[in-house]
Amino acid sequence: MRLSSYLTADGTASYGTVQDGKLHDAGKTLRSTFPDLRAALTAGALDQVKAAAEAGDVLDMADVTLLSPVPNPDKIICIGLNYMTHITETGRDKPAKPSIFTRYPSSVVGHDVPMIRPTASDWFDFEGELAVIIGKAGRHISEADAMAYVGGYSCFNDGSIRDYQRHTSQFWAGKNFVDSGSMGPWLVTTDGMTDPAAQSMETRLNGEVVQSTPISDLAFNIPELIAYLSIVTELLPGDIIATGTPSGVGLFREPKLFMQHGDRIEVEISGIGTLSNPIQDEAR
Amino acid sequence: MRLSSYLTADGTASYGTVQDGKLHDAGKTLRSTFPDLRAALTAGALDQVKAAAEAGDVLDMADVTLLSPVPNPDKIICIGLNYMTHITETGRDKPAKPSIFTRYPSSVVGHDVPMIRPTASDWFDFEGELAVIIGKAGRHISEADAMAYVGGYSCFNDGSIRDYQRHTSQFWAGKNFVDSGSMGPWLVTTDGMTDPAAQSMETRLNGEVVQSTPISDLAFNIPELIAYLSIVTELLPGDIIATGTPSGVGLFREPKLFMQHGDRIEVEISGIGTLSNPIQDEAR
Repeated sequence: MRLSSYLTADGTASYGTVQDGKLHDAGKTLRSTFPDLRAALTAGALDQVKAAAEAGDVLDMADVTLLSPVPNPDKIICIGLNYMTHITETGRDKPAKPSIFTRYPSSVVGHDVPMIRPTASDWFDFEGELAVIIGKAGRHISEADAMAYVGGYSCFNDGSIRDYQRHTSQFWAGKNFVDSGSMGPWLVTTDGMTDPAAQSMETRLNGEVVQSTPISDLAFNIPELIAYLSIVTELLPGDIIATGTPSGVGLFREPKLFMQHGDRIEVEISGIGTLSNPIQDEAR
Repeated sequence: MRLSSYLTADGTASYGTVQDGKLHDAGKTLRSTFPDLRAALTAGALDQVKAAAEAGDVLDMADVTLLSPVPNPDKIICIGLNYMTHITETGRDKPAKPSIFTRYPSSVVGHDVPMIRPTASDWFDFEGELAVIIGKAGRHISEADAMAYVGGYSCFNDGSIRDYQRHTSQFWAGKNFVDSGSMGPWLVTTDGMTDPAAQSMETRLNGEVVQSTPISDLAFNIPELIAYLSIVTELLPGDIIATGTPSGVGLFREPKLFMQHGDRIEVEISGIGTLSNPIQDEAR
């Protein structure tokens, strides 16, 4: 099942399923019970979402503004260096533990919504990633049990302001600019994609391939990430784990390749779809 | 005015003011309009909170469980190295930019609630800090205007799991353990403390002074922090900026000094009060 969150033409926040390129609205029926998709995930009510969507309004994708599939997660947990190809290009060795930072939801837009290059910087870089969305709350989760806590997958663009990222040792400033990242086009539930490691990912800038990797190249795989993260914090339904980017980012190219106003950046993962965003300069 | 959030004896989340050691409940009257203190801050409705509290139930502090004064902030922004005394003890030079990481609200308890030492580590350290609570939304805020965006102040204990903090270059894992930090005992609004830089802070472990500093020793002061942060993200009412800790943390002592089950840790800031928490081992 593909799940989506969006604003309808009159600005109402809603959610539903995606089938044959159309949105099937569930929010109109369910909103009074589950105000958003995160609430439905938390209640374990995806069957109700499916049933409501099947009986609900059918909307054209062009008539809504897509949000990140989970626009209001409790946590967005990003893994910093998690493909050997990217670890090597940054000049580092394979780490013993996953490198973790966080993004605020205000830094993540939905599919086809402009990602914003801030006035503060010209160094706006792309990072294609597989996002794992948690489906069930848990702490102290073993690697053996971890996949049962996954609710679904999506494409993620961990858009990064590289000079700000390098201001100090902590990545925060480069990873939290308003509307600088994206997630979508939708969330694919685990019934729709049983083996994420069998998929591959490609990032394209203006149609040109800039990143390409099998997901199986992850240095820390999904069960290892969930086990480690859940030592520290309780994972909640709707929490997002952006699993890291492979080599090919603009910062380490010669010459450097950064995103400009008018560009289009795409992250495609087999079994999910293509997350595509135009790049727009900040209006000030 | 001193503002507090808490659970009443029957488990209801509420908020109110603190006067003469008693809680004056505003939530019972206002909850249907402003479900929590963050909502009241967002609406600019502190006058209504004050009026409701003056006419509201009077509760004994001992009969409630105090929460962090803003238990559900959009963001908790922590400044990593912001007193020269602490920068020097970590072996670093004065940074050109503030070092920033983030904590999830689930890692922060209220006054007098146990801070939890996780089973995963013996390296549980204290960090006394001044917390600034944002009172008005803003982005691209100038240093000259910054203080108008401050809603109040509180004491913060940026409790840190040091071995996890050192797993990678990113501090996340050491700063987000469930219930490992604290904030309180209340929020003092700006009418109650006009000059934070004139205050001083002391951290005590089992009554012994372990950190002591004038707030004026901050390497990046409050206007500089607000200006820098608001280049990146929109600051919202209830957002918390934990402004950094001075020297004296347990990690850099010889021998190292970490918190143990049964200890009591206190952070006192003149003009605010004393945030005190017992240390308890994780129950597993």
